[in-house]
Amino acid sequence: MDSQGFREAAAASIDEIANYFDNIGSRNVVSTVEPGYLRKLLPSEAPREGEPWEVIQADIEAKIMPGITHWTHPGFHAFFPCANSYPSILGELYSSALSGACFNWICSPAVTELETVMLDWLARALGLPECFLSTGPTRGGGVIQGSASEAVLTAMVAARDKYLRETVDEGLAEEEREERVMVKRSRMVALATTLTHSSAKKAALILGVRFRSIPVREEDGYALTKEGLAAALAECRAQGLEPFFLAATLGTTDVCSVDDFAGISEALAEHVPAAGQPGEVWVHIDAAYAGAALVCPEVQASTRIALLERFHSFDMNMHKWMLVNFDASCFFVRDRDWLTKALSVNQAVYGNKASDGGLVTDYREWQIPLGRRFRSLKIWFVMRSYGIKGLQDYIRGSMQMGEEFADALRARPDLFEIVAGPSFALTVFRLAAARLEGEGAVSAEEQNAMTRALYERANATGKIWLTSTNLSGKFAIRLMTGVRTTERHHIQAAIKVLTELAEHVMKDRDLQYLN
Amino acid sequence: MDSQGFREAAAASIDEIANYFDNIGSRNVVSTVEPGYLRKLLPSEAPREGEPWEVIQADIEAKIMPGITHWTHPGFHAFFPCANSYPSILGELYSSALSGACFNWICSPAVTELETVMLDWLARALGLPECFLSTGPTRGGGVIQGSASEAVLTAMVAARDKYLRETVDEGLAEEEREERVMVKRSRMVALATTLTHSSAKKAALILGVRFRSIPVREEDGYALTKEGLAAALAECRAQGLEPFFLAATLGTTDVCSVDDFAGISEALAEHVPAAGQPGEVWVHIDAAYAGAALVCPEVQASTRIALLERFHSFDMNMHKWMLVNFDASCFFVRDRDWLTKALSVNQAVYGNKASDGGLVTDYREWQIPLGRRFRSLKIWFVMRSYGIKGLQDYIRGSMQMGEEFADALRARPDLFEIVAGPSFALTVFRLAAARLEGEGAVSAEEQNAMTRALYERANATGKIWLTSTNLSGKFAIRLMTGVRTTERHHIQAAIKVLTELAEHVMKDRDLQYLN
Repeated sequence: MDSQGFREAAAASIDEIANYFDNIGSRNVVSTVEPGYLRKLLPSEAPREGEPWEVIQADIEAKIMPGITHWTHPGFHAFFPCANSYPSILGELYSSALSGACFNWICSPAVTELETVMLDWLARALGLPECFLSTGPTRGGGVIQGSASEAVLTAMVAARDKYLRETVDEGLAEEEREERVMVKRSRMVALATTLTHSSAKKAALILGVRFRSIPVREEDGYALTKEGLAAALAECRAQGLEPFFLAATLGTTDVCSVDDFAGISEALAEHVPAAGQPGEVWVHIDAAYAGAALVCPEVQASTRIALLERFHSFDMNMHKWMLVNFDASCFFVRDRDWLTKALSVNQAVYGNKASDGGLVTDYREWQIPLGRRFRSLKIWFVMRSYGIKGLQDYIRGSMQMGEEFADALRARPDLFEIVAGPSFALTVFRLAAARLEGEGAVSAEEQNAMTRALYERANATGKIWLTSTNLSGKFAIRLMTGVRTTERHHIQAAIKVLTELAEHVMKDRDLQYLN
Repeated sequence: MDSQGFREAAAASIDEIANYFDNIGSRNVVSTVEPGYLRKLLPSEAPREGEPWEVIQADIEAKIMPGITHWTHPGFHAFFPCANSYPSILGELYSSALSGACFNWICSPAVTELETVMLDWLARALGLPECFLSTGPTRGGGVIQGSASEAVLTAMVAARDKYLRETVDEGLAEEEREERVMVKRSRMVALATTLTHSSAKKAALILGVRFRSIPVREEDGYALTKEGLAAALAECRAQGLEPFFLAATLGTTDVCSVDDFAGISEALAEHVPAAGQPGEVWVHIDAAYAGAALVCPEVQASTRIALLERFHSFDMNMHKWMLVNFDASCFFVRDRDWLTKALSVNQAVYGNKASDGGLVTDYREWQIPLGRRFRSLKIWFVMRSYGIKGLQDYIRGSMQMGEEFADALRARPDLFEIVAGPSFALTVFRLAAARLEGEGAVSAEEQNAMTRALYERANATGKIWLTSTNLSGKFAIRLMTGVRTTERHHIQAAIKVLTELAEHVMKDRDLQYLN
């Protein structure tokens, strides 16, 4: 394909993509193919001779689309969104043209510098404390990671390194220090809650450190409290373990709960070395999804975001609820030296004057991988195209639809029971325990089975996609209203479908879903 | 931006990108901006109101392009390539439209299934042993990682898990086993060579395991030998350490050397538990760059690629020398259970029938992150557009240019000395030790200084970009001829520039570069 061929192929591709979005609502949300469908449609090896673009492009609709689950579909209410938007797609397009493994500043100064400026823009837009800005007082700053999993892993690696530097005498002879470090490592424990995203546990697994989940309770709104953390810290101490890391959450995956930031600070102050002292516990705030809502000042206030200045790192995914394509996990630290001290590994071939002079940022020292794409371009395009006002309108619209959905559930207490939310455009609900008048309450097992029946029937319509969760044995349905294409009439339609299906399940005397 | 606005903005973007490639050779390869140039050009926060596309697009040439180092420039001879190609850019375009966090099969069956089929296509094209195919006899298979760094980290995590499962009694009580694991972990050591990519050391740092570099020697062609590995294994044993992982290389970053695969197998067989036995050493082959050349049968033969069936994992980056955009690090394992056992972490919200039934692949269990993009699309487009023959022509063309370049150096032994290669389109060279007739040899220090002077003057032309390395104190220049746009006349021009500059440096009587 030469440059003229590219012009023609790209024009045809753009046309197909624009048509796809224009008509996305007419497709089923979730793919209905059987496992292994695609292998049957493809040759077992690559062709010997090249093929023309028309032949390749025709296969997208014919072979790929049947196997696509449409995350930008207005009926996509599952998990959290995985965003895109027109300006973001253009950002990816330019990024793929300006390819480069931009591990060092000189590999493309614009890639590093735009990223630094964009993360400052974002930190300001979200109302993050000054300490997370590259221009702030603590040598902080942001970096784009591939995902929130990589962010929490990076934070945990830096936290372990920081803890060991602070608690094992650096003046010891190398061999003795190495042995002391090995012993200390075996006592270190990372903490999270039972609703912290599983990536924190995976990070501990990768580091090979101990991991403890602190239970959170319905009566606390599924948030980590001062008392809960204090009890966990005391238990660690009783077992001779040393907590060095806590993954707290702003918007948990299951219910979008927010941990008690003030309570966390208080518990830490009472039980472990004070903030800023050697051996302090690193607190990482995972705001992967809900962090986007901080673009609204009222959310900055309600979540008391200024309290984060006591913590060490913060991560949010613009690629979830902020209209930027995957991957754009925006990770901030209060002191960038914590990252570079933990992650710098030198190799002669990467030496260059700008890096050696210490005048520039080399983001390879802020992350697990070496190479990196030009990911800030799509952030720049999105923030400029929408403006802060456009982003706020979008977030507020999502949350308003969440309220409307929850109101509709509340209007039918005979059918529905809200388990959590609406919180950040997520409502978690199940079928009501009280059945038809005069019949009394159903058993917990039956309530789960009926809720699962509703869930499966709703997904079987193909028009909407919901995911489920399990909260202390309660099966519950999650409905998220954050996708860009979702409008109020889609939510009204979802309410109608769910209400009708719930009535059927309630009336169903055979209870065949109980097996 | 609505769908019509997108059609127009995309058309303008495609036009700009095609023009960029049509004229790329007229730009300087490396950006010449000063650190901090971009912050001065941008507002300190995001705009309140959205801006029109024309305004945003105009800023690309005005503000971004000056800070771009052009990795697709024909004069880019630095590092290794970071590829793109027209079909690959279209693959990224479709991928960004079909966004989704495809961690599970049901999240878009096509994303998982195309990836599995493409990695089988690739394994066949590269002549990898059957054990690395998803349809092979050992439950092997491939997965796309973000980078070779993530691949070696993933391999090392799986290797540690496998080693501990095999060497610590699983029947022990949980607490006792945990303590035994902690003690064992503190004795485990990962091995590599002094020319293994720094990502192996970084992986060990992240895992918190010990790491040893085995020196490689010029007289062995900078390859790990049987004797070198055997000595390292004996030394580990003498220190009470337990080797569990070896990162070997097909095409080292500095000189493109290839470790002795047969020798590695023999040394392991003699010094540690035999292949397939509990406690065997996991061998990971990093072929990040040079792996692409395996698409040529003559390279499969010369590297004895069939020997890899004794090893455990293999990784190559299509985004380096195989015309696919970053990121496409193709990672293969001989038994996929090694990955899933080490990396599975469950969370209720991700449960679904297909996954729970065990019928499908959930790639989140094969990698560090949870979410993932539709990265196989660009591989499909590239392999079909070029065909195997087109890829072979491209690789052979790169290697042929490497030979021509080296021949030109050899034709001027008064000026140049080849340190390594040409190997996989990489030549490593320096200024000759013998100076003008009758003057005798120069000192090692002088030779380094003169080579550095040549290097800096060549890069200062702006027409080519070279990187350097340091081999046991010898400063050397690397010239790589693998970029897609590089043609024979560009190499001839580079030879002319380097020859003229070398003559100047040689004649320079002041030796001011010695400082």
